[in-house]
Amino acid sequence: MQLLTDPTRHHALVDAATAPLELVGVAVSDTSKPRPGIDKALLTTDVEGLIEKDLDILVELVGGIEPAKSYLELALRHGVSVVTANKALMAEHGTALAKLAHEHSADLFYEAAVGGAIPILRALRSSLAGERISRVMGIVNGTTNFILTKMTNEGSDYASALAEAQSLGFAEADPSADVEGFDAAAKVQILSSLAFGTGLTGEVIAREGITGVRAVDVEFARRSGYVIKLLGVAERVGESGISRRAHPAMVPVGHPLASVAGATNAVFVEGVRSGPLMWLGQGAGGEPTATAVLGDVLDAARNRVSGRHDAPFTGDKSLHLVESGELSSVFYLSIDVMDQPGVLAEVASVFGRHNVSIQSMEQSGYGEEARLSFLTHHARSSDVSATVDELASLASVDSIGACIRVIDGGGA
Amino acid sequence: MQLLTDPTRHHALVDAATAPLELVGVAVSDTSKPRPGIDKALLTTDVEGLIEKDLDILVELVGGIEPAKSYLELALRHGVSVVTANKALMAEHGTALAKLAHEHSADLFYEAAVGGAIPILRALRSSLAGERISRVMGIVNGTTNFILTKMTNEGSDYASALAEAQSLGFAEADPSADVEGFDAAAKVQILSSLAFGTGLTGEVIAREGITGVRAVDVEFARRSGYVIKLLGVAERVGESGISRRAHPAMVPVGHPLASVAGATNAVFVEGVRSGPLMWLGQGAGGEPTATAVLGDVLDAARNRVSGRHDAPFTGDKSLHLVESGELSSVFYLSIDVMDQPGVLAEVASVFGRHNVSIQSMEQSGYGEEARLSFLTHHARSSDVSATVDELASLASVDSIGACIRVIDGGGA
Repeated sequence: MQLLTDPTRHHALVDAATAPLELVGVAVSDTSKPRPGIDKALLTTDVEGLIEKDLDILVELVGGIEPAKSYLELALRHGVSVVTANKALMAEHGTALAKLAHEHSADLFYEAAVGGAIPILRALRSSLAGERISRVMGIVNGTTNFILTKMTNEGSDYASALAEAQSLGFAEADPSADVEGFDAAAKVQILSSLAFGTGLTGEVIAREGITGVRAVDVEFARRSGYVIKLLGVAERVGESGISRRAHPAMVPVGHPLASVAGATNAVFVEGVRSGPLMWLGQGAGGEPTATAVLGDVLDAARNRVSGRHDAPFTGDKSLHLVESGELSSVFYLSIDVMDQPGVLAEVASVFGRHNVSIQSMEQSGYGEEARLSFLTHHARSSDVSATVDELASLASVDSIGACIRVIDGGGA
Repeated sequence: MQLLTDPTRHHALVDAATAPLELVGVAVSDTSKPRPGIDKALLTTDVEGLIEKDLDILVELVGGIEPAKSYLELALRHGVSVVTANKALMAEHGTALAKLAHEHSADLFYEAAVGGAIPILRALRSSLAGERISRVMGIVNGTTNFILTKMTNEGSDYASALAEAQSLGFAEADPSADVEGFDAAAKVQILSSLAFGTGLTGEVIAREGITGVRAVDVEFARRSGYVIKLLGVAERVGESGISRRAHPAMVPVGHPLASVAGATNAVFVEGVRSGPLMWLGQGAGGEPTATAVLGDVLDAARNRVSGRHDAPFTGDKSLHLVESGELSSVFYLSIDVMDQPGVLAEVASVFGRHNVSIQSMEQSGYGEEARLSFLTHHARSSDVSATVDELASLASVDSIGACIRVIDGGGA
């Protein structure tokens, strides 16, 4: 709001929008709350009335599914272009809303829903429209990256890193949407829809959080030349498959994503012809979000002036979802066992039985127990899961510590 | 060309362009040369004839000023939109060509001119149009970054790193356009025009190359927590000033630009509201360049279909150029002196006389000589130059080794 009414930016905005932008109203739940810099006469609680007021563009910053969804539908049916930062709504109803927008010659933009100020959605829609993308991989949740960065740089355990993130306002009192990977999964769905044309229909995305990542795992990663990050991944598998998932992963230290620290977000895109590309920036916060929203408003305004709207990106409809179990990867596996003769042979034979070949093993003893840390060769995820299940059932295995995918080198 | 005629991408391209794209002709200097995948009937040596053939979009990949400039002018006068990768032409005549494009309702796009496949120009034109940018800072020359990365990672000296870059095809036989900073300077001018609305009229950009960077400087930087990079910088100075320059700089290791290795390019943008943003990708090569060109072609095609064209970005006309000498920075200075009593006092008094205050000093002896390496506090560039000049005139000073700016921490 401040951005739109800032006199020092007014000229540039009019230029960029190719038309004057006028703020015609602000719908709020409480008009009596003080809102510095906003003309009180513009405030209203009547959202429907505002939408029907011959608007050109509606900016939705309500969040959540309802009533935001109803407002957007009403606006789009009136041919009003919509700018929203609502990732949950887009992940669940994006396809239907985009269709509605197209039918009524309106735009639906949601740059702020992924990566805050990072203009990654527009890049996928526009600059990379002619590119065959093979993989999109992002650090798209600042809270978990803050926690994992703490654990990496200071050797903190998960609980104390989370507590610090909470005390600094980087994590909510109930952190589950972030630490369980729900937020990253919704963003993966949005990235995938633009990179590959998959739907925004609330499908369940394979998801693992970071609550099981221990200081010893982070330390093992460090010694082995990796950093643990929570990644959202959407990638082609073979000619016609697609995989979408969010999970912790070991990223090689030389990879551009490895050095993305703290609450910063980054999205790494691999195109067949462009090669690797990465976008980095502030993933959250009022002002970065406002920058993204304003970019969308200007795009929508330019389209209004020229009487056009962006076609919804359709992409490749023939892609089928590949279950995570079918994917192959290098895995890091850590188990605690009784330190007695024959255990290693027993454990190794379980790996062998499930066609999981071991690349390296590290044993460290702790009294009567020993910790075994494995890096596998490329193995099918379902084979690794079966290995883990059988290992867990062995009398000599005390507990399964971690099972984390290792990302292929590559990099830029 | 292959991109346009690739049947597997055809559907996505038509979708993205919102119209079928048809290749109507390819102007070449020699039609008899074999060009796999291109219909021989499309080849012609008659550029003017091709342009007058009711084209919608001309892609110029000739390079250099003439005859490329005349072709572009002819096309734009015919209302043909132009996509070019020609950075030299844009840096020198971009303002005039953009004006011509606007007068004839045509587009002029040149994404491939800076950062190869990285869609940084479109981001500045579009996503960040509503943002007040304070600084754009880029590793925009892959050759010099390859050389400096070699020197950093392997302790190589400049000459052997250059020789290796040449043998691998990362540097030309005559490397001066790259290593003397001319290429980076042209790209800075283009970035500045989009970030700040400054002109593309061939002005001289303050420029220093990397030929004077020695292994000892790279090593000093490493010990002090920095990496030496050739940066192109365009930044606001105070309320109405602008500085544009290309020079080696010491970048703090924690800065996102520090980890950009090899021939990779990256552009770091600081916006008042967006916070720091970075784009990273392949800066050169046929396929990355083709990706950028194709993105522009699709944009131009979409505009054709909707009968509009992008307005030239005007920005803030009131910005005045600030001479590099007026800028303040931390500096690294290395000098070789006679190792005898009183020299340090003499040297220190020169710094003091020119208001350059010393932050830290490191002395290392080499027989009768000693090397003194200084980090200054923030000092005016012209004061540091005067210090260097006076130091060079002292009998006890053998030679000035290096004088390199240190970039402020910041980061993302």
